[in-house]
Amino acid sequence: MTHGSSFQRQAGIQAKVFLVGAGPGAPDLLTIRAAEILKRADIVFYDALVHPETIALAANAERIAVGKRCGRHSTAQRFINKRLVDAARKYGVVVRLKGGDPMLFGRAHEELEALRAAGIEHEVVPGVTAALAASAELGMSLTRRGIARSVAFLTPRVGKGERPNEWARAARSADTSVIYMGAGEAQSITSTLLAQGMSASTPVVVIENASLPDIRQVKLVLRDLPRVAELGLRGPAVILLGEIYADADVESIAPHSAARIA
Amino acid sequence: MTHGSSFQRQAGIQAKVFLVGAGPGAPDLLTIRAAEILKRADIVFYDALVHPETIALAANAERIAVGKRCGRHSTAQRFINKRLVDAARKYGVVVRLKGGDPMLFGRAHEELEALRAAGIEHEVVPGVTAALAASAELGMSLTRRGIARSVAFLTPRVGKGERPNEWARAARSADTSVIYMGAGEAQSITSTLLAQGMSASTPVVVIENASLPDIRQVKLVLRDLPRVAELGLRGPAVILLGEIYADADVESIAPHSAARIA
Repeated sequence: MTHGSSFQRQAGIQAKVFLVGAGPGAPDLLTIRAAEILKRADIVFYDALVHPETIALAANAERIAVGKRCGRHSTAQRFINKRLVDAARKYGVVVRLKGGDPMLFGRAHEELEALRAAGIEHEVVPGVTAALAASAELGMSLTRRGIARSVAFLTPRVGKGERPNEWARAARSADTSVIYMGAGEAQSITSTLLAQGMSASTPVVVIENASLPDIRQVKLVLRDLPRVAELGLRGPAVILLGEIYADADVESIAPHSAARIA
Repeated sequence: MTHGSSFQRQAGIQAKVFLVGAGPGAPDLLTIRAAEILKRADIVFYDALVHPETIALAANAERIAVGKRCGRHSTAQRFINKRLVDAARKYGVVVRLKGGDPMLFGRAHEELEALRAAGIEHEVVPGVTAALAASAELGMSLTRRGIARSVAFLTPRVGKGERPNEWARAARSADTSVIYMGAGEAQSITSTLLAQGMSASTPVVVIENASLPDIRQVKLVLRDLPRVAELGLRGPAVILLGEIYADADVESIAPHSAARIA
């Protein structure tokens, strides 16, 4: 809520770095606050998945693409951290624009640590995360009174040399689960969840490009999840799992037994 | 993404009902899309927690408060469902404005079922949910590469006569948990989580009124969670639990052993 960087710059006080959630994809799912900060930005470091119209809001800013689609190396992340700190020493309003919400699978922790270590003022502007946009498109609540009262958001992705996380246990324990950044690892996700004792017939919906015109939604059951590879997904996708998705009214991939791929 | 209700009304086609997320509290954390729909609204049914400035965006609409703060009875919910259906037969643009995001603990399922049963066109507009706004204020990511890769969002609230949910198991299994609508039940939440085997020293942060000027944040450990009753919370609050919150830089409630309440 503090907006005073141009004053700060005039007064010789240091700049401010905003970690801003760009939302799930559609430019009009940006928050009003995020749009206002972008309009005031002097420099913007943006992720590959942010919509061009959203980046264009920063009309007066130097605009710099950073980060890969996924699987960024920690060296690259360290370089982004350094650039944020360097930019804060040169510019008034520095924006780090991230897809979705910064605090959910956005590696904000590392950027915030770097800013704190350098004593740089910062603020986080939350955004609409992909699971919520996907649920809106699907027309199905993640929770359902009396049936689904817990939702796990998780990712199977771990960095090199990092300890394996117990994401599958969380997926098994929650009524509904949303897997981020998992569509490219459908085979190993399926094996892991089945090994954890999740039912092979658990209903699953995969949603690619939620909130965008080229959205795709497909329904299947857990044992057939590896078949999402047939779809050739290229955009960001979330995988929704849970009994409630038995009711999902979207196109199905035929059961594996009925239309087995040779 | 479909915006055509004034055309539809002229053409004699039925109206459209928008389930709109109002975001966590601050009016500028509304999405651009939500603001545009509110400006076009003919009638708005809004929750008690929505900010007056957000409701005021619906300048040309009949504005109707519905729902209690929490613990709404299902009769009240059924009444809201009926009013939405009735309004769609009389107005062009009908908005159901909900705190946070409609698809997370918003009882959207019941409203969507009613709209589908009545054959009424509808669209869900996602919003920023409280957990993300609270994390932004706290300046701490819900996830941390290598340490916290799963987050559970859950509520211990169940309606009368409904089966108990297994929310505590989900909280136990995820790296980080966020409990919605739980601050008034801190004693029973604590007992349940301890009985599930969660460590009594698990770090906890309670955040009331995230994104609003009267925000309050307090840090404690699980065994002391019942002491949030001392704070006299009146606004909506989320309870964040997980090892990452050992690093939270907010005021602590003194450990129970050091400052025991008589």
